[in-house]
Amino acid sequence: MRPIKKLIQLDEALAIVLEQARPIKRKETLPLLKAMGRVSGQNVASRVSVPPFSRAAMDGYAVRARNTFRASKLKPIVLSKIDTVYAGGVPRKTITNGTCAEIATGAMLPQGADSVVMVEDTESDGTSVSISESVHPGKNVSKKGEDISPGTKLVSEGDVLNPSKIGSLAAIGVKTTQVYRKPLIGIIPTGNEIAELGTQLKPGQVYNINSYTLASVVRANGAEVRVLPVVNDTLKDIQRTMKKNSDCDMLVFSGGSSVGERDIMLDVLERNGEVLFHGIAVKPGKPTLFGTVAGQLVFGMPGYPTSCLSNAYILLAPALRRMSRLPENEPPCVRARMSKRVVSATGRTQFLTVKLDRGIAHPVFKESGAITSMAFADGYVMVPADVDLVEKGEEVKVYLL
Amino acid sequence: MRPIKKLIQLDEALAIVLEQARPIKRKETLPLLKAMGRVSGQNVASRVSVPPFSRAAMDGYAVRARNTFRASKLKPIVLSKIDTVYAGGVPRKTITNGTCAEIATGAMLPQGADSVVMVEDTESDGTSVSISESVHPGKNVSKKGEDISPGTKLVSEGDVLNPSKIGSLAAIGVKTTQVYRKPLIGIIPTGNEIAELGTQLKPGQVYNINSYTLASVVRANGAEVRVLPVVNDTLKDIQRTMKKNSDCDMLVFSGGSSVGERDIMLDVLERNGEVLFHGIAVKPGKPTLFGTVAGQLVFGMPGYPTSCLSNAYILLAPALRRMSRLPENEPPCVRARMSKRVVSATGRTQFLTVKLDRGIAHPVFKESGAITSMAFADGYVMVPADVDLVEKGEEVKVYLL
Repeated sequence: MRPIKKLIQLDEALAIVLEQARPIKRKETLPLLKAMGRVSGQNVASRVSVPPFSRAAMDGYAVRARNTFRASKLKPIVLSKIDTVYAGGVPRKTITNGTCAEIATGAMLPQGADSVVMVEDTESDGTSVSISESVHPGKNVSKKGEDISPGTKLVSEGDVLNPSKIGSLAAIGVKTTQVYRKPLIGIIPTGNEIAELGTQLKPGQVYNINSYTLASVVRANGAEVRVLPVVNDTLKDIQRTMKKNSDCDMLVFSGGSSVGERDIMLDVLERNGEVLFHGIAVKPGKPTLFGTVAGQLVFGMPGYPTSCLSNAYILLAPALRRMSRLPENEPPCVRARMSKRVVSATGRTQFLTVKLDRGIAHPVFKESGAITSMAFADGYVMVPADVDLVEKGEEVKVYLL
Repeated sequence: MRPIKKLIQLDEALAIVLEQARPIKRKETLPLLKAMGRVSGQNVASRVSVPPFSRAAMDGYAVRARNTFRASKLKPIVLSKIDTVYAGGVPRKTITNGTCAEIATGAMLPQGADSVVMVEDTESDGTSVSISESVHPGKNVSKKGEDISPGTKLVSEGDVLNPSKIGSLAAIGVKTTQVYRKPLIGIIPTGNEIAELGTQLKPGQVYNINSYTLASVVRANGAEVRVLPVVNDTLKDIQRTMKKNSDCDMLVFSGGSSVGERDIMLDVLERNGEVLFHGIAVKPGKPTLFGTVAGQLVFGMPGYPTSCLSNAYILLAPALRRMSRLPENEPPCVRARMSKRVVSATGRTQFLTVKLDRGIAHPVFKESGAITSMAFADGYVMVPADVDLVEKGEEVKVYLL
């Protein structure tokens, strides 16, 4: 059996992973309706004006402003109505002195008009209109290009496309847009004891949990998953699986990175690529392996489901966000007080799962092999490596699951 | 033209919308890999034990604990190795006094053994093993059912399925699970001036922006969209569209809910259902209509893209989360100081878009017709209805877009 040689600290491990996690370069073109939340692969500048014409910003009457000067409630000015312009319609008449056109919000301003009097400041008998408020030129008008003028940059390469940025692309009429592809992550459970869901367990077998937890974390962090069948813990089988999935940006194995004669992942990485670390000073999650094979990142996650998932949160998720070009994000967190004194080994960061009850954090960690250590928790506390004790009642930061 | 009669306050409007937004009742069964983030439609209790057998929690040697009592580094106890058990394998021998079996983490504990001595506390020549540390019964063993015993409730109806809950369902071997369906929201742009993306604009036309911003907000809040083509602003066309989409849980029209002779949405709602409000004391977004038609919720959003989108954030999103049974969530926010004095009309809540620069919030709102009022913003400040002034340098809460 080969014990892990030297543990590295969690922050070192994270730095190594992030250094290797190169932002994706591949791009794809998507219909605008599917681009929400994606990362723009290009700068987009407008070639057109939005609005494409000067339009009324209010329902009312399109006028020449100077015709309204000195209008008041006591002394309204009367104009003759020569047209009605609806949104989507085209004015038929030119506004001259003494005339006006009824106009709806969003409708094209007629030639000759320079402003709109709000309907609230008018009275009309159908043919003549009393104006009781003066307007200045440009009043209640959105000028052509006022929203977007030709040359305006709407989206920069690297921007996350939120609803309003999507809206600005719609405004200029683009139907598709170029975004960065999602990185493709292969998820590979290993171990002869792992059975697929829906099958009958044979003696000595347990169900595959890690593919499901890992796939969930991968998808939540901007990447695509390829979930592969369980692979036997042999050098040949693992190498064959790696070769067949060399198009993935990263492979995440689970199981087989602990100590033991049959620990094959270390051999695979040593023979075919480079081991960047093996063993992290974190609890749970110590027996974690990370390296590269021909430019592809390879994680060897512990087989134990809580160790595997806690590492997915603290190491894999930040790497995926960098690869997919999404901004870093800290999970939502709350402050709570510990329900009891917790002893933590110095030298190792502890990922301590807790249940929250009215501001009190109750530790629920059972053991790294138990998925309920995590599934029954509301969140987790990171106890730093240099802390050996969290006192009862001490305030802690709880990251919500 | 029909002016809006009476504005209601934003919080009243929200209360009305939330009261009408009934949590979805329809359910569907999904493969576990697709259930991430969905809301469980059922309680799930386990019928099995996890692990299904007692297993080693460490690499080492399976022993009878009492055989190790008084073992020490100075006086190791020697046992004879009679078997090797790998994970996924089945022990062939029963451990009796004086014997042990080499065992891998996760492997089934042999009959007769009650504990595991860590490999680090042993030395072996292949046939005999020196034990230098005593263990108590149960040490380094995960007992059958220790993680999940039969009858344990893993998921409650209404739980959001996060990665670890998904993992707990995988642990008991379920391949599919029942979740609540996503509410189906029909998005319907109205107005003769609205052109579909990718077409050539005719004079007087502008591109459809609202379908894209609304669809993005709907999907981000747990619902499904049906994006419908632009509908003409006539009673007949709108009624026909409503009838054809009566299977949607909600219809969100945009455009045509402002004042004006051609404002049809109000007529449609009055004739076919019930108007719950028309006009909100919010800026932008005043001309917003909400009601029900035969149990279906109907929003008439303003046609102006920033008014439509701001209302989607503050009214539609909370309604969708309630319908889809997702927990309420406040958008992420930061504190910042206003770059300049902002005057706000009392009596109306103001949705003020801002750009952030090193802790300073610069207002970027142009007008409600300009999508760049929002697309060029990093977030927004909600100025309450009873506030008429935000001073330069005043601290404000900025909700990030």
